[in-house]
Amino acid sequence: MTFTLKELSELVGGELLGDPRAGIKDVAEIQNAMPGEITFLGNDKYRKFIKTTEAEAIIVHKDFDGEYKNLIKVDNVNLAFSLCLSKLRPQIPKNPPSIHKTAIVAKTAILGNDIFIGPHVVIEDHAVIENGASIYANCYVGHSGRVGANTLLYPNVTLYHKCIVGENNIIHSGTVIGSDGYGFVRKDDTIEKIPQTGKVVIKKDVEIGSNCSIDRGTIGDTVIGKGTKLDNHIQVGHNVKIGKYCFIAGQTGIAGSTTIGDYVTIAGQVGIGGHIEIGSRVVIGAKSGISKSIPEGEFWFGYPASPYKVATRQIASIRMIPEMKERLREIEKLINKKDL
Amino acid sequence: MTFTLKELSELVGGELLGDPRAGIKDVAEIQNAMPGEITFLGNDKYRKFIKTTEAEAIIVHKDFDGEYKNLIKVDNVNLAFSLCLSKLRPQIPKNPPSIHKTAIVAKTAILGNDIFIGPHVVIEDHAVIENGASIYANCYVGHSGRVGANTLLYPNVTLYHKCIVGENNIIHSGTVIGSDGYGFVRKDDTIEKIPQTGKVVIKKDVEIGSNCSIDRGTIGDTVIGKGTKLDNHIQVGHNVKIGKYCFIAGQTGIAGSTTIGDYVTIAGQVGIGGHIEIGSRVVIGAKSGISKSIPEGEFWFGYPASPYKVATRQIASIRMIPEMKERLREIEKLINKKDL
Amino acid sequence: MTFTLKELSELVGGELLGDPRAGIKDVAEIQNAMPGEITFLGNDKYRKFIKTTEAEAIIVHKDFDGEYKNLIKVDNVNLAFSLCLSKLRPQIPKNPPSIHKTAIVAKTAILGNDIFIGPHVVIEDHAVIENGASIYANCYVGHSGRVGANTLLYPNVTLYHKCIVGENNIIHSGTVIGSDGYGFVRKDDTIEKIPQTGKVVIKKDVEIGSNCSIDRGTIGDTVIGKGTKLDNHIQVGHNVKIGKYCFIAGQTGIAGSTTIGDYVTIAGQVGIGGHIEIGSRVVIGAKSGISKSIPEGEFWFGYPASPYKVATRQIASIRMIPEMKERLREIEKLINKKDL
Repeated sequence: MTFTLKELSELVGGELLGDPRAGIKDVAEIQNAMPGEITFLGNDKYRKFIKTTEAEAIIVHKDFDGEYKNLIKVDNVNLAFSLCLSKLRPQIPKNPPSIHKTAIVAKTAILGNDIFIGPHVVIEDHAVIENGASIYANCYVGHSGRVGANTLLYPNVTLYHKCIVGENNIIHSGTVIGSDGYGFVRKDDTIEKIPQTGKVVIKKDVEIGSNCSIDRGTIGDTVIGKGTKLDNHIQVGHNVKIGKYCFIAGQTGIAGSTTIGDYVTIAGQVGIGGHIEIGSRVVIGAKSGISKSIPEGEFWFGYPASPYKVATRQIASIRMIPEMKERLREIEKLINKKDL
Repeated sequence: MTFTLKELSELVGGELLGDPRAGIKDVAEIQNAMPGEITFLGNDKYRKFIKTTEAEAIIVHKDFDGEYKNLIKVDNVNLAFSLCLSKLRPQIPKNPPSIHKTAIVAKTAILGNDIFIGPHVVIEDHAVIENGASIYANCYVGHSGRVGANTLLYPNVTLYHKCIVGENNIIHSGTVIGSDGYGFVRKDDTIEKIPQTGKVVIKKDVEIGSNCSIDRGTIGDTVIGKGTKLDNHIQVGHNVKIGKYCFIAGQTGIAGSTTIGDYVTIAGQVGIGGHIEIGSRVVIGAKSGISKSIPEGEFWFGYPASPYKVATRQIASIRMIPEMKERLREIEKLINKKDL
Repeated sequence: MTFTLKELSELVGGELLGDPRAGIKDVAEIQNAMPGEITFLGNDKYRKFIKTTEAEAIIVHKDFDGEYKNLIKVDNVNLAFSLCLSKLRPQIPKNPPSIHKTAIVAKTAILGNDIFIGPHVVIEDHAVIENGASIYANCYVGHSGRVGANTLLYPNVTLYHKCIVGENNIIHSGTVIGSDGYGFVRKDDTIEKIPQTGKVVIKKDVEIGSNCSIDRGTIGDTVIGKGTKLDNHIQVGHNVKIGKYCFIAGQTGIAGSTTIGDYVTIAGQVGIGGHIEIGSRVVIGAKSGISKSIPEGEFWFGYPASPYKVATRQIASIRMIPEMKERLREIEKLINKKDL
């Protein structure tokens, strides 16, 4: 399907500089874009490709000062591009509502309308599958588990007993929700398990990447707030509470009983210790190790982590040591010579 | 079900200060506990909630010097609390022994008594499932694999051929036991695979969290010792030997052929290199990178790691650099002025 | 089956020092090897075991200067040993071609010859399974997915729609190929998802360990080059391009749109930021955090990473700080005394 540049420019609410009748039939990355394709400049690193791209048009930020035959200027390049992507590349349509004959659905499970349950899915007793939910092949929903309205579980997701996934969630393959928290206690020379009797509660509009592990609470619940987005391979410990609209990037781990505020951004491979509080709107740099609470709105980085400015100053100061040593030697030489 | 405080105090072998007839019907976290609920003070960070909690009673350490209407004083708070938890919140009962009609069990597999095999489980030729084992939905037990007596595999566990899980194990969802070790050798400009012909042996009373990977040995075995507890997302390389009653926290990786002693504690996101030896009762701090062997009983930390005291001194000394630079400048100024 | 030392020495193209008629019936690690077994010395750390091993013969490097009753001297010990391993321990034979009766294979899927499709596998519409492919139990191949000739998917692998796995691949359990890239954009106080409409393309001769996540591209593709070998728990972000014959060790994460050249070696738990370029033949040390592009052939290490020599010098210089502080104090004392 082809759209005119005018149509797309109106779709994204942008300012069109160029030929409104230019036809756009696909999207492409700037380095590969061809005639008939629209691309975007979302990161200045790619600006060099403006000279070589064959794109029909480029979506740029409204402050962009370069030139190209067809431009759409917008406030938010990524958002505008995302809208074009949805328009030009419709997703594979949802599976029509159905319950596959190989799915094992307990008689006591409560099933909403318009749900899709794929092959080999297992739904245990007293589970609830709300209207419009899609549960792909080989997923498991434990005893009294709940899958919210219009939520999508990709294949091979495991939802343990009693755990709740809210509405409009997307959970990717391999993710495990509700495995036991890591709760043990040494007793003489052996180790006793502390029963993990709480559950996991995931609010609405959450997305969780592949191969994540969200542990159930010991007594209370592990909670992931509305609209929060988790990347892949993330571990969330027991009784952790994560607020709303947070970004948490891949391979990050959050130890038990820690609280994360709202609108927090956590980069990849971060480790956050247990029983601490991360304030709202905090930003944590990649690979940081956090062992203390962080007040609202701060930006921390490093291992062990400090406020960003302190961390970068420390890194810079390490680089000064050899020169300082040299100056120290100079002074000592001078002092010796002068026979002080 | 309701118990009196006297009953619970006897259960945990504690000293009761307060009303022995007080009725307890559930457990709760201290910040949320209500009348009729028992809670605990296991971490001083939560002491502030004593003023606001509505708990019927609090389990505290015997040296606790505060006051509350009903207290149970014990030697080991977490252990006592764990006992109350087991009493007040009985687990969902085990599935009754049965083999689901959709499970595919090879004719040559040897099945014990009182086992549960859930829907869509696959048990390959010559596998052995010992008495009382529970294998939940969608698990896979490879050729000649063995699942020990009373062991529980949660859904979606993969056990490769020949690998052995001992008795009384708990293995959480998504965990893979027996994938090939990372054994390759460069040959001219290509890479050859080294066959991974060993297996994995997991001893009794082990718990492994979700989404872990335990690789099989190249020639000999990868071994996890009795009573050791692994958190989630842990990678154990080929031919690694882990001793008994170790704690290994989430997202830790142990490279091939390394040996870990007994009673070792490894915090989260630690990386341990290959072909080294970690002595018994060693403790390793979170996110440490270990490339050398560590003698018995030592506490190491950092990246690259050092003994804990050395590591903390290094961290502190980095913070001194700016001040040292300032003093150096002062001396230089002075020397210049005095025209030395 | 027993082979003579002469036969094995010819197999590996080595120089035999000892009894050519000695019979070898198995392989073993040097510390455990018994008569009738061949072992190898691939790492000098194990040299001490030459005194105690009971091995029939040892494969050593051609420059080895020690003595043993039977030695095979070779150019590449690991390669020679790998050949012996293949000879002496034949793998469990491949499953004979068949499609299990519980597999759900879409009518529109295209199936090659001599394929194995195990129990509970799901193959969606328009998927292609090429000749000789083996797909083990509980795997999922999405709409229009492709599994190349002679490729092996171990149990519980998830291949999303449109994603392509080339020929002669080995993909271990729990690995997810084609989950959505982590693409979101803040919009006012909420977060919008950017559709992930690209795919994953894995070239031939690739091996991917267990529980990895390879995200699909946003517009273009995520690509893993020919012969590259991934360990376990690796995350590859959307639009990442990895070259050929790379080694990537466990728990490493590569953020979106980054390019990795050919013959690159990345150790365990490395984090690589987005939108950067890692040149061919680069080596990256364990646990490094890489936020900038690295030119061809360089060796980087640390967090934040630097060229290896710079990094080790920095580490060494931190250790000098306490001594420098002491010297500074001495000078100050001296200056004070002399009343400068």
